[in-house]
Amino acid sequence: MYTIGVDFGTESGRAVLVDTRDGREVATAVHAYPDGVIDQKLPGSDKPLPPDWALQNPFDYIDVLKKTIPAVLKQSGIKPEEVAGIAIDFTACTMMPAKADGTPLCGLPELRNHPHAWVKLWKHHAAQPQADQINETARRMGQGWLDRYGGKISSEWFFSKALQILQEAPDIYRAADRLLEASDWVIWQLSGNEIRSACTAGYKAMVQDEGYPVREYFAALHPDFADVVDTKMTRTFGQLGAKAGGLTAQAAEWTGLREGTPVAVANVDAHVTYPAVKAVKPGTMVMIMGTSTCHMLLGDQLQTVEGMCGVVRDGIIPGYYGYEAGQSGVGDIFAWFVNHAVPPEYHEAAQAAGMDLHAYLEHEAAKQKPGEHGLIALDWWNGNRSTLVDADLTGLLVGATLATRAPDIYRALIESTAYGTRVIIEAFEGQGVPVTELVAAGGLPEKNKLLVQIYADVTGRSLRLAGSPQAPALGSAMHAAVAAGLYPNIEAAADKMGKLKAEVVHPIAENTAVYDQLYADYRVLYDYFGRGANDVMKRLKATRRAVRGE
Amino acid sequence: MYTIGVDFGTESGRAVLVDTRDGREVATAVHAYPDGVIDQKLPGSDKPLPPDWALQNPFDYIDVLKKTIPAVLKQSGIKPEEVAGIAIDFTACTMMPAKADGTPLCGLPELRNHPHAWVKLWKHHAAQPQADQINETARRMGQGWLDRYGGKISSEWFFSKALQILQEAPDIYRAADRLLEASDWVIWQLSGNEIRSACTAGYKAMVQDEGYPVREYFAALHPDFADVVDTKMTRTFGQLGAKAGGLTAQAAEWTGLREGTPVAVANVDAHVTYPAVKAVKPGTMVMIMGTSTCHMLLGDQLQTVEGMCGVVRDGIIPGYYGYEAGQSGVGDIFAWFVNHAVPPEYHEAAQAAGMDLHAYLEHEAAKQKPGEHGLIALDWWNGNRSTLVDADLTGLLVGATLATRAPDIYRALIESTAYGTRVIIEAFEGQGVPVTELVAAGGLPEKNKLLVQIYADVTGRSLRLAGSPQAPALGSAMHAAVAAGLYPNIEAAADKMGKLKAEVVHPIAENTAVYDQLYADYRVLYDYFGRGANDVMKRLKATRRAVRGE
Repeated sequence: MYTIGVDFGTESGRAVLVDTRDGREVATAVHAYPDGVIDQKLPGSDKPLPPDWALQNPFDYIDVLKKTIPAVLKQSGIKPEEVAGIAIDFTACTMMPAKADGTPLCGLPELRNHPHAWVKLWKHHAAQPQADQINETARRMGQGWLDRYGGKISSEWFFSKALQILQEAPDIYRAADRLLEASDWVIWQLSGNEIRSACTAGYKAMVQDEGYPVREYFAALHPDFADVVDTKMTRTFGQLGAKAGGLTAQAAEWTGLREGTPVAVANVDAHVTYPAVKAVKPGTMVMIMGTSTCHMLLGDQLQTVEGMCGVVRDGIIPGYYGYEAGQSGVGDIFAWFVNHAVPPEYHEAAQAAGMDLHAYLEHEAAKQKPGEHGLIALDWWNGNRSTLVDADLTGLLVGATLATRAPDIYRALIESTAYGTRVIIEAFEGQGVPVTELVAAGGLPEKNKLLVQIYADVTGRSLRLAGSPQAPALGSAMHAAVAAGLYPNIEAAADKMGKLKAEVVHPIAENTAVYDQLYADYRVLYDYFGRGANDVMKRLKATRRAVRGE
Repeated sequence: MYTIGVDFGTESGRAVLVDTRDGREVATAVHAYPDGVIDQKLPGSDKPLPPDWALQNPFDYIDVLKKTIPAVLKQSGIKPEEVAGIAIDFTACTMMPAKADGTPLCGLPELRNHPHAWVKLWKHHAAQPQADQINETARRMGQGWLDRYGGKISSEWFFSKALQILQEAPDIYRAADRLLEASDWVIWQLSGNEIRSACTAGYKAMVQDEGYPVREYFAALHPDFADVVDTKMTRTFGQLGAKAGGLTAQAAEWTGLREGTPVAVANVDAHVTYPAVKAVKPGTMVMIMGTSTCHMLLGDQLQTVEGMCGVVRDGIIPGYYGYEAGQSGVGDIFAWFVNHAVPPEYHEAAQAAGMDLHAYLEHEAAKQKPGEHGLIALDWWNGNRSTLVDADLTGLLVGATLATRAPDIYRALIESTAYGTRVIIEAFEGQGVPVTELVAAGGLPEKNKLLVQIYADVTGRSLRLAGSPQAPALGSAMHAAVAAGLYPNIEAAADKMGKLKAEVVHPIAENTAVYDQLYADYRVLYDYFGRGANDVMKRLKATRRAVRGE
């Protein structure tokens, strides 16, 4: 039998049809969202959106289902009756307002010109004032759940965005019968059932053992927010790998699958990757590395770890505490460097060698030994969202001389992100959550062998690579197999369907010895600039804002 | 009447024929040294020189005299009898061994294959072990003169280089009847008299009120060094602007000037620039800005100032204490950035605009207000030779974000060097040596208006520019006029012949207010990384050396 996993990304959706016996990826289809990321103007409008807004059109998600699922069926020649189930994963928190029947508010002609009626994409960052209020209020009221999120709720998360709707557009808030994750909305459209995924509920909507925060807390944020959960959300959660329902007749028509085909509870792209690389046990940290890095880890115990993004019971693999941490700048720092700080001679040399510039710089930087360039960087070009949780921190480079060249800095930037990961590992281990081995997924480690070796050397841990370049969709197909009853649990599915490359990258002892020294210096700089001893980064940002009149 | 000033630089010599009535530069001729800077192999040899060596051929200096002086006479049509005097300025300390009759040791066939027989150029840096020994011994023996040099003698200076000859090539040392500044050797060749310039004696050979260091001190460095002064040098000094003698018959033949034409005591390129820009009084700091910056300042009092290069009575203008300080990296940091860290789009835009890349980046950076880029740099790409006197310090950039672009960094680097100058100004003023106005000379301020305004804004002082692009040669011509008796002293010559641009660049109050804040942060970083609180820069250099097996 086969299952289909659909991965909803930032710019497009991807369906993969998978053989459930062995995880073989039989067919793949990708469809770009027609409206993409809506951050300039609403479709059909000339009015510019404010800064930091990022919206999507929910009908684009339906479009993905209509285009990609028939495509993978056609490509593979697999018959609908051979498809045992379907599951999806999504960016998060990506949320939206809807009517009681599931109609998105932006689908109503009278509301489609209102920005707050649309889907707020994960990277909609305009709800920072609401996040600040949520954090201050939680601290003042001694809300215990705050510790489960590293002491800070993000502007990206569910209630920051929901409160922004209420405060800025009370009419839209009133018009919304439901406020929900876009992923849950898609499952609703597929299965006819509104099922809240326990995963996004935990990581993005502050749901812990005791459920949502209490009514008094929401009331303190805004009187009209007191009953947000009971009037616009649900307290019933679906576990990962559980069946949300069967495909509706309409969804069957969209997709070409059979009505009643099992549909799994929605998952998150990072979280679903964990079992997709055969990670199912405490000790294995999976790093999903792209422009930024997500670190996923299981624990037997509930611990409070500095700066973690969140810990949720059953949030990654049922039966364990699922820990999430992250680095806000990784691949985007390398991209910044390659695009904005590399002189023409390296562009020309890369072209002459028939390599892209990243690959050429990697090749040049790989000729060096650790410590040879004499540089250390603090990897905060995009702030720090790991232990320091501070968006106002900025990048630093120390050690430059007249002999410093582009490959030196490129290597130092890669190393700085590896040091950043080591800080996270040490934060977990310091609280009794062991990290014994690493798995890297995502585009970055796939392309950059030097980076992979540096991560092994800096962390002193062996590292393996994801076996599929489309691990999230594969992970969704695995959850579909569990929801369809083909496997008793995700561990069993991971054993047969998960994919991990055979090669193990081991740390090289002499490199690790040098990196231990360099990391000690990184830590001193990390604490000096990150923990208040010298707030020069914040003063520079404040001066910059003042001078620019922001 | 006219005089001729000859400026001996690192790569070439330049003669300027000047009208002594008004300083008008009537004719100029430049001649590149045939052997240039000898840092790879001796002329006619295949044996590579060790690292950090930099030699010159003294006969190249004679070549300059033979080529350039006839050329300016011919160009101008001025007759030899209209030339009242000649003077020279030179890089320093540039020193050499000679026989008692003035023959350079490298001019002897039996010694010409020995590197130590040649001229050691100012930037010969291979005598660092000797400088270390000189400093340690002076500290141990409580030598008072050490304070006059900021507590540290440089590897570039006279006795470091002389001791290197003795230790590494005792035969050459023994063969040398004379050890002397190349500038004094040129004056000897012109006038027949070996006259030691009081300026180089003071700044480069530790001569203070009490003369050279005592015999016991030299003996402690090496038993055979005890009598270096009395056996190979002279204790008779020529003051700046004094007459060393009249042109010899042979020198008259070389130059086309009349025998007996007055020849002035030798000067140093940076020091001679001071009166050339009409600076003759305490309070005026002259900055000679190129790859590095020299700061020249007069004082009525003798003070000990942290990290100054030296203070010498009569060392710049007779009658005053002449203070010298410096920044080891200025223009070379900007050149590093432009050559090694600017992406192709700016190269292309500069080309499209018909500008060189420095000018284009300056133009782009000038659109910003102070503080707008959110960056601070420590200008230590080439170490720090001002208050910290530490070659192992390195460059730092803080504040980088994904939005940082090349003009931002270019501007931050210019600002960092201006902060570095402000540190020096504050060190002088903190010791009661006032700095009331600035004059900038050299190629850098001539080309970069933004830099000039930033220096005025950062230091809060008005700034004027040198009036001649060949200020050192002009200053030499002025000293020649004094030596010839056309003016009673250099002040009078500066009044008529010195040149300063009319425009005064005033600090802009609102810019200074922002720079005061940024400078406060620069100072904190300066002290933190420069004074032992965090020696990460030194550790990085040590690691780099260890890894490279150096």
